[in-house]
Amino acid sequence: MIVAGDGAFLDSTGASLGLRAESNRLNQMLVHLRRVMVDVAVIGAGQTKYGNHQLGLKGMWAEAAENAFASVDQNFDPRQVDEAFIGSVAFGGGQLGNTAALLTEHSGMEGVAVRRVENACASSGFALRDAWMAIKSGQADIVVAGGIEKMNDLSPERKRFWLGVSGDTEWERLAGLTFPGTYALMARRHFHEHQSSHDDLVHISVKNHKHGFENQQAHLRKQVSFEKAAGGFMVADPLTLYDCCPTSDGASCVILAADHVVRQFTDDPVWVRSSGAGSDRLALHDRPSITQLVATQKASKSAYSAAGITARDVDLAEVHDCFTIAEMIATEDLGFADSGQGGIFARNGEGIRNEGSVCLNPSGGLKSKGHPLGATGTGQAVEVFKQLRGSVESERQVRDAEIGLTHNVGGSGATCAVHIFGRDRNE
Amino acid sequence: MIVAGDGAFLDSTGASLGLRAESNRLNQMLVHLRRVMVDVAVIGAGQTKYGNHQLGLKGMWAEAAENAFASVDQNFDPRQVDEAFIGSVAFGGGQLGNTAALLTEHSGMEGVAVRRVENACASSGFALRDAWMAIKSGQADIVVAGGIEKMNDLSPERKRFWLGVSGDTEWERLAGLTFPGTYALMARRHFHEHQSSHDDLVHISVKNHKHGFENQQAHLRKQVSFEKAAGGFMVADPLTLYDCCPTSDGASCVILAADHVVRQFTDDPVWVRSSGAGSDRLALHDRPSITQLVATQKASKSAYSAAGITARDVDLAEVHDCFTIAEMIATEDLGFADSGQGGIFARNGEGIRNEGSVCLNPSGGLKSKGHPLGATGTGQAVEVFKQLRGSVESERQVRDAEIGLTHNVGGSGATCAVHIFGRDRNE
Repeated sequence: MIVAGDGAFLDSTGASLGLRAESNRLNQMLVHLRRVMVDVAVIGAGQTKYGNHQLGLKGMWAEAAENAFASVDQNFDPRQVDEAFIGSVAFGGGQLGNTAALLTEHSGMEGVAVRRVENACASSGFALRDAWMAIKSGQADIVVAGGIEKMNDLSPERKRFWLGVSGDTEWERLAGLTFPGTYALMARRHFHEHQSSHDDLVHISVKNHKHGFENQQAHLRKQVSFEKAAGGFMVADPLTLYDCCPTSDGASCVILAADHVVRQFTDDPVWVRSSGAGSDRLALHDRPSITQLVATQKASKSAYSAAGITARDVDLAEVHDCFTIAEMIATEDLGFADSGQGGIFARNGEGIRNEGSVCLNPSGGLKSKGHPLGATGTGQAVEVFKQLRGSVESERQVRDAEIGLTHNVGGSGATCAVHIFGRDRNE
Repeated sequence: MIVAGDGAFLDSTGASLGLRAESNRLNQMLVHLRRVMVDVAVIGAGQTKYGNHQLGLKGMWAEAAENAFASVDQNFDPRQVDEAFIGSVAFGGGQLGNTAALLTEHSGMEGVAVRRVENACASSGFALRDAWMAIKSGQADIVVAGGIEKMNDLSPERKRFWLGVSGDTEWERLAGLTFPGTYALMARRHFHEHQSSHDDLVHISVKNHKHGFENQQAHLRKQVSFEKAAGGFMVADPLTLYDCCPTSDGASCVILAADHVVRQFTDDPVWVRSSGAGSDRLALHDRPSITQLVATQKASKSAYSAAGITARDVDLAEVHDCFTIAEMIATEDLGFADSGQGGIFARNGEGIRNEGSVCLNPSGGLKSKGHPLGATGTGQAVEVFKQLRGSVESERQVRDAEIGLTHNVGGSGATCAVHIFGRDRNE
């Protein structure tokens, strides 16, 4: 086997491969090889409808997983899964510890090594990242990444508790700051610093409702006029009802495979071209700026770099719009608009499907498709998988979609995971 | 770059390395290479004392992390960390979502990609596994795996809630079954099926108290006589107070590094020779046997196989003894004793440091060292790291310790992670 100590790769396998240790150059190449050794593809993806479910945790998860299994072109047996990662903030609060194992048990993945991944609303974005790394590590060939949240079992008080604790407890929550309030502060500051206004947020709301209206799995399927969205009742000034995502139940599931087994399952894989992630200070007041998310900037920079692309190459992006202002800021942090230009971008309709420069939230986003916290990250990947394979409802299809991006944020930006997907692998 | 499609590795890097595609044999070797490409070492490890802490979450974590940083032989800067995984069941219940990012922020790992890993009491065993895979994936060179739990902030009712929900809620908890009750059922059944009795459990309790008595970081530092442990007050028949681990606060932290950077930090690394994991049905009544844990068997089988060793090669093992019966069953599932012989093993003192065939729980185990749920898995790794480097308090040192094992179980066995560590790498 090849071993590497002191930066030097020495050994028997190397020798048997006919490699001679011309050392430095070879070592550099091998360090590089480690990074690119395994390509990872999505071979199947599915989800429940988002909304208010009668189903409990096990039922919702089974539905999402079965939809994912059924989406694999060749017969798929869940017992083939080597490892699983399930994102959830709180599952729902009933069965708490060890729930990940309960879910794989109830979806045929018996005995699989599984764990819950939690990063507030970015839980399954990180589940996806960890699943991707599990395959790249060479330890697993087929890995499930999923997410789930049951929010409508909770009393309103418990909901506020779960949602509130994703921001900073000590300095924000205990002072009375809610999540809409947190994002309202960001919006006010953005309006103050840049050429933006609440009207720009209304454009984002109208667009996402328009996209989601045609999505059979969306929570809020209704078109909303500019006037109606502009006149919504105030939640946290300047954010109205139409700026805020709903409280949804739902589950989502994505099946990843290593390149050397992909063709056993499909001739039409979607490649995970890269994964990037970062974190930031939890409390707003600790950040140098509250009109940008450093975690998003860090995650996307590393994802673009690893995929060898820029924002300009992206055809569609599922963006974390828990509030419309979050999409506006993400537009800038992800590089679709210059810093401070997110308002103009929205105003000009740049994110509208098949009209603008990139389609933002073809699914309807968190605003319209819904936001079952832990399910959101892998739910974004479900949409990108279907879009890139051309298998969404026809009126929703993004034309010539070759490259898609998912952007999943935890809390008010303390954590972020960005993934880039493509019809083709990296070159 | 080397790409592999349809099982075929083709390409330019291969060509430039002078590899000729004599295809099948080469392909097999490359698939194998993927699995063994990166070796991972522990370069530092530290923890808080386990017990009843005045410190809150951030303070406990900072202490554990700083102890780990300080244990690295060369200067270590937390900004060098590429990725972090922190295990916790509930953190403590105050700051819930996104807490992992709060902890890295408060320990100098600013901006790092971090997430919480949750698998009930196996949370940080899985954090360790995921950290190990992150390095093996080639995506990170230096990764932190840790765990934390603040249990003594909780009211007794909340404690029962958190502990109870790690077993099955629907069939066990709602029927009144507590965790001691769950393990009491396993004990009764073991006594019924095999040559075992409560006296054997008492031997385990006495041994672990003896080992933990000398451990400055243990929660319960007291020697216990056979008579005292045998006569403890009943918790859940046949388990007495001396069969049950305490409710502890604590945090633990382990720093892993890829082989090609290890020597920058230490000449005395401890290698992670393998990681194995598995899951099982959550509810006892769904399992074919309740006197063995299939998840342990699966995890250890794959860990032994990947490390190329057997149970006989292990010098010391940190075993998940939330109850003494759990250690007895683990003795069998991990292969230290034959099936059904765990009682005789304990009776004969086979697990006693420097007396028996293998040292089980040199730290004192969960019974004496304590059990801050999420911190336990990486806390076991802290002990193995110190033992294999010969740096524990002298009277506690396991002689000639070359190979150590950690065994971390979630709930009553729904999840399990096993890791094998060595002074040397795999051959």
